[in-house]
Amino acid sequence: MLLSYIQFKPIFGDIRKNLAAITKLLAPVKTDLVVLPELCTTGYLFSNKREIRALAEPLPDGETARFFIELSRQKNTHIIAGIAERDGNVFYNSAVITGPEGYIGTYRKVHLYAEEKKWFKPGNKGFDVYKIKSARVGVMICFDWIFPESARTLALKGADIIAHPSNLVLPWCQSAMRVRSIENRIFTVTANRIGRETRGGKSLKFTGKSQMTGMRGEILAQSGNSQSEIKTVSINPQKARNKSLNSFNDLFEDRRTKLYM
Amino acid sequence: MLLSYIQFKPIFGDIRKNLAAITKLLAPVKTDLVVLPELCTTGYLFSNKREIRALAEPLPDGETARFFIELSRQKNTHIIAGIAERDGNVFYNSAVITGPEGYIGTYRKVHLYAEEKKWFKPGNKGFDVYKIKSARVGVMICFDWIFPESARTLALKGADIIAHPSNLVLPWCQSAMRVRSIENRIFTVTANRIGRETRGGKSLKFTGKSQMTGMRGEILAQSGNSQSEIKTVSINPQKARNKSLNSFNDLFEDRRTKLYM
Repeated sequence: MLLSYIQFKPIFGDIRKNLAAITKLLAPVKTDLVVLPELCTTGYLFSNKREIRALAEPLPDGETARFFIELSRQKNTHIIAGIAERDGNVFYNSAVITGPEGYIGTYRKVHLYAEEKKWFKPGNKGFDVYKIKSARVGVMICFDWIFPESARTLALKGADIIAHPSNLVLPWCQSAMRVRSIENRIFTVTANRIGRETRGGKSLKFTGKSQMTGMRGEILAQSGNSQSEIKTVSINPQKARNKSLNSFNDLFEDRRTKLYM
Repeated sequence: MLLSYIQFKPIFGDIRKNLAAITKLLAPVKTDLVVLPELCTTGYLFSNKREIRALAEPLPDGETARFFIELSRQKNTHIIAGIAERDGNVFYNSAVITGPEGYIGTYRKVHLYAEEKKWFKPGNKGFDVYKIKSARVGVMICFDWIFPESARTLALKGADIIAHPSNLVLPWCQSAMRVRSIENRIFTVTANRIGRETRGGKSLKFTGKSQMTGMRGEILAQSGNSQSEIKTVSINPQKARNKSLNSFNDLFEDRRTKLYM
């Protein structure tokens, strides 16, 4: 199975230009699943509710989701894209999952970071796993990484791969995702954005260094902190269903759940 | 608070010599708590039940525990030492916690690694936190690190510091413990052994690189892979009680336990 991420710099508020940038990066590549950054069509640094109302869209019926559905169909691939979701008068920091067959699902970010709490409601649907080709793919977004329960829950629900759209500003996530791979024996794809956003008196620098990790935490692909690019690796996701470390230890069977809080 | 680990090479089966090596390394140092490696008085590579029966001791009444109690009193310090425990005809891979006031507690390793399962019973008492000076100290042993629930459970029970006696052979633990610090905002002390043991047709190389980490995963102290030594740092353990990352995020209050498996 071919697995990709796109790392780029979304332009705040310019959905059309961001979709064009994504389309261009994806154009020359054959892949089965491409993971895009968090809020990759709107940009990150909202400064008031009016901006959210103007840029967020319903899922799966909004124009941006329909664009990804069509792009999935044209490219015969699956896409997991961070997107600002409108549900009536409520907004979520979401990821839409699409494939050649159309809309597959929506993940709403469970753990909101910092001022996101001013614009978004925390995800109310939990963590889900989606069948994509021969793989089971779990989705979490950015700051979810710091809670080990996010990746653990997805792995226990059967995820072979964790797709992880991100807009990272803290320095720790990339090494933590290697540990998420090791402790769950899964693949991970962290699609991070690059560039700086300066808006409403605030400024954030996003750290890039998107990466894919294998079941032993090894780096399968990694980007620098300033390059727009798509990276693709070939993996066998079903290997992640074997949780045995040696003939005595299986990482899931060895769990002592009654002793955990 | 002064926090230390001892890294050294235990000699299999020679409890007296190992206790002498520990005493010598500790002698010149003033500290409030010193963490020793897993099975630091017996060595690791048991090859039959007879050896366990000969070397394991009851806690806290065995000779080795009484030695540590006396050493704690003489040095006016607390000791957390990995030790083979005998409880009737059952054996545990345990850690004994002692202080100037005497015996404090016993932790029995919850997640046994590889052939340890042939000699030991998995710990049946769960994860506990002990009051040591101004700190609350949780204990886990070696392979417990790969289960994020171990450190999480200790942190949720109030641990400021995780004391982590180890006999590591896999290459991943040291970076994982940095992540355990970050995700729980706690201090960690991994006391690993060094050297090779070759017994009963088996051979294991232990990786050293003992370390202490701070609440942001920063390395406070670290050893190489072959040096016998004691390292000491000064920390304020009560800082670990503040789980806030910024004015919006508290790592414990932000947990969405209903959405976790």
